[in-house]
Amino acid sequence: MLRRLLAEFLGTGLLVAVVVGSGIAAQRLWPDDVGLQLLQNSTATVLGLAVLILLFGPVSGAHFNPVVSLAGWWLGRRTGDGLTPAELAAYVAAQCLGGIGGALLANTMFEVGAGTAATERGGTGLLVGEVVATAGLVLLVFALARTGRGALSAPAVGAYIGAAYWFTSSTSFANPAVTVGRMFSDTFAGVAPSSVPGFVAAQLVGGAVGVLLVLVLYPDAGRAADAVVVPHPEPTHARA
Amino acid sequence: MLRRLLAEFLGTGLLVAVVVGSGIAAQRLWPDDVGLQLLQNSTATVLGLAVLILLFGPVSGAHFNPVVSLAGWWLGRRTGDGLTPAELAAYVAAQCLGGIGGALLANTMFEVGAGTAATERGGTGLLVGEVVATAGLVLLVFALARTGRGALSAPAVGAYIGAAYWFTSSTSFANPAVTVGRMFSDTFAGVAPSSVPGFVAAQLVGGAVGVLLVLVLYPDAGRAADAVVVPHPEPTHARA
Amino acid sequence: MLRRLLAEFLGTGLLVAVVVGSGIAAQRLWPDDVGLQLLQNSTATVLGLAVLILLFGPVSGAHFNPVVSLAGWWLGRRTGDGLTPAELAAYVAAQCLGGIGGALLANTMFEVGAGTAATERGGTGLLVGEVVATAGLVLLVFALARTGRGALSAPAVGAYIGAAYWFTSSTSFANPAVTVGRMFSDTFAGVAPSSVPGFVAAQLVGGAVGVLLVLVLYPDAGRAADAVVVPHPEPTHARA
Amino acid sequence: MLRRLLAEFLGTGLLVAVVVGSGIAAQRLWPDDVGLQLLQNSTATVLGLAVLILLFGPVSGAHFNPVVSLAGWWLGRRTGDGLTPAELAAYVAAQCLGGIGGALLANTMFEVGAGTAATERGGTGLLVGEVVATAGLVLLVFALARTGRGALSAPAVGAYIGAAYWFTSSTSFANPAVTVGRMFSDTFAGVAPSSVPGFVAAQLVGGAVGVLLVLVLYPDAGRAADAVVVPHPEPTHARA
Repeated sequence: MLRRLLAEFLGTGLLVAVVVGSGIAAQRLWPDDVGLQLLQNSTATVLGLAVLILLFGPVSGAHFNPVVSLAGWWLGRRTGDGLTPAELAAYVAAQCLGGIGGALLANTMFEVGAGTAATERGGTGLLVGEVVATAGLVLLVFALARTGRGALSAPAVGAYIGAAYWFTSSTSFANPAVTVGRMFSDTFAGVAPSSVPGFVAAQLVGGAVGVLLVLVLYPDAGRAADAVVVPHPEPTHARA
Repeated sequence: MLRRLLAEFLGTGLLVAVVVGSGIAAQRLWPDDVGLQLLQNSTATVLGLAVLILLFGPVSGAHFNPVVSLAGWWLGRRTGDGLTPAELAAYVAAQCLGGIGGALLANTMFEVGAGTAATERGGTGLLVGEVVATAGLVLLVFALARTGRGALSAPAVGAYIGAAYWFTSSTSFANPAVTVGRMFSDTFAGVAPSSVPGFVAAQLVGGAVGVLLVLVLYPDAGRAADAVVVPHPEPTHARA
Repeated sequence: MLRRLLAEFLGTGLLVAVVVGSGIAAQRLWPDDVGLQLLQNSTATVLGLAVLILLFGPVSGAHFNPVVSLAGWWLGRRTGDGLTPAELAAYVAAQCLGGIGGALLANTMFEVGAGTAATERGGTGLLVGEVVATAGLVLLVFALARTGRGALSAPAVGAYIGAAYWFTSSTSFANPAVTVGRMFSDTFAGVAPSSVPGFVAAQLVGGAVGVLLVLVLYPDAGRAADAVVVPHPEPTHARA
Repeated sequence: MLRRLLAEFLGTGLLVAVVVGSGIAAQRLWPDDVGLQLLQNSTATVLGLAVLILLFGPVSGAHFNPVVSLAGWWLGRRTGDGLTPAELAAYVAAQCLGGIGGALLANTMFEVGAGTAATERGGTGLLVGEVVATAGLVLLVFALARTGRGALSAPAVGAYIGAAYWFTSSTSFANPAVTVGRMFSDTFAGVAPSSVPGFVAAQLVGGAVGVLLVLVLYPDAGRAADAVVVPHPEPTHARA
């Protein structure tokens, strides 16, 4: 279990480091063009997220996201699949700590001073965007797991986030742990602490919508809760 | 069948939400650079379309396109494959309603007022572009299905549309349901109602050309009509 | 055989349509930024070429390139693999006619007048670029075929050309049939007839270098000549 | 063994040619926009690196990187996997010579004069960036090898470097042989000789951190040392 928590911590942390770090790089290269900043930011995230899922998936499943862990627990609770409540709590803690650590790592690499972000993000449109983004993410990972295509999760989740950066109005945070982490860098990808509760609430609503769609479109998805995002036997059982 | 229609509705809807929504985002970020608007719009569509095919393919086949459904019915009608006429009508209705719903969702997320689009699109060159774009799409999905490579449809169709955005003069709508949906947002990706009949006609001609090429290059493709775009056993038969 | 020649004709033609058409689109959108023109042109080609290999590969092998067909004949001639001399001549003719047709199709879609291109391309550095680009392409397709990974040719050849657009000084034509086709559109991707002999000569030299490297790194590659670029049983033998 | 060394020489050389050559092309097209230079440079590298791993992997394993070879030797030394010390020395020499040759090839194609680079790169943030970049790379290739997913190394390593170009402050050299090669072109991707020792030291530290993480997350990874980056039976044993 410690190994799995380490994987969630490192994976979520590096995900935030990719989001925040590439945002800083882009901000410095195109200080006057927010569009190119976002294009570069989303491209780096597509590639980085896919790699992180490949890297840590066989250890912990590569949730990197409290909403995904929560949905897995809820969907699998009747059949004995998914995380137990204690494991869920540990996963969420590791993810949030990782998210904070990732922001601090990006700050260190780019020599950015400490301090929380000042960028406020909110409004009805943006919150609807977060609901849509999170619902789609939950639906995607459970649909792939339920149909035995967990091996496609890495490129698929990366591609999904790459599209959602642009087609949602919120640039698709879709992840409470990443949202928490992004408070800790006052740079392109930052989010003001005052905006976080609204975002997290919208993400939880989106997660519930996603679970509902999963149940309608892919009944019995709960049996796949152990296979989200990536099937993860303990590594000693992995193929040599 | 209801589940399949829901999948077609959601899939076509989210496809239009991706196209329209990313167009709005790009328009706001680069108000003076149509090239970057299109680059970003096409990139988001490549990624989003591939994900939507992965997501809904095992339920409904992920047609998301009346021309594809129509071609499947026509090619499979002699061997008992493909949709029945009643199913075809239901699919087309779900796709068109989804397309409209997707445009409205994008408007909601980006807080854009209601109203149909004012952008007129037409002319001989553009209509030739739509014929080419739709013919290529139909040929692609049946070629993959006929050669047992339906698992590649998601990235392949995404990549095809990404190229066709640029190499055709019409930016490749290639889909009547998406064309209908794109009437309902007066933004970057919108199309004026007066231009829609010409586009749909060109798409139907393109579909016929595509079917002809399928028959020449891949005889017996009709037997694959059930496997377009993605083979879709009812989910209860899917691999657990 | 007619079906295979049709596939080579359509495939090479659509490849040139992608290259020329996306070049015209980019030229119109960014008349003052050659860099973005090339970025967009290369991106469309990466996606389009991969799709065309998927589409026509099972019929003709998806050579689309006289140098590849020639290398296949030469490498396979002793073991009875690859094209016969008569088939080689027919393939090359279909490819060159396709290349011309593709340029004319792009001109039609974008309503560009007829006429050959005025852009001269040459000089030692550029010709070295063409040698490197063509050698790498030949090495790639035979390496994949020889190691049983022909199914990866579509994305791999697309990605290779995408890199070679940028890392070679010639933007990597690497294909005599495409070079011939690109004479027939006086737009971004055009090449003046006077520059064509030098390019084709450099491509043939590159092909020879590629064959040499294949023989050193992957002995017995001749046995794979039938599997280049994609293994292509007649479609009636394909998996149903 | 000579064939494997030739593969390492050519692969590392072409990797540097891609990095340096695309940098020159971008510099000429956008002399005033370092951001677009880096975007284009990273895109070409993502594509090119993936192709080179596919191309040479079955011959030599496609290390192209002294840190990867060194980590393979160290992890596999107790179980008799990985390179022997003599092979390690030969691999590193071939990689460094290849790196230099690749820079010279790029200079030749783009008709750039000889001379070492003047661009100094350093500072604590950048060196932390190199440590992170190299650690992640080592962890990725051994994680994939250990879990039997070496076939994914080509796109995964390409994607990783594409993200690391942006999320690390150093643009992620992460490779001593590439660092050495990049001294030999005074262009966009160049690095001054005086900056090289610091970069190489940081890369070695990063390699050690990566090995440590491998051992914690994927015990028994040493048994996979022969399968890094790509499993590489001698080509005569490859699938025909």
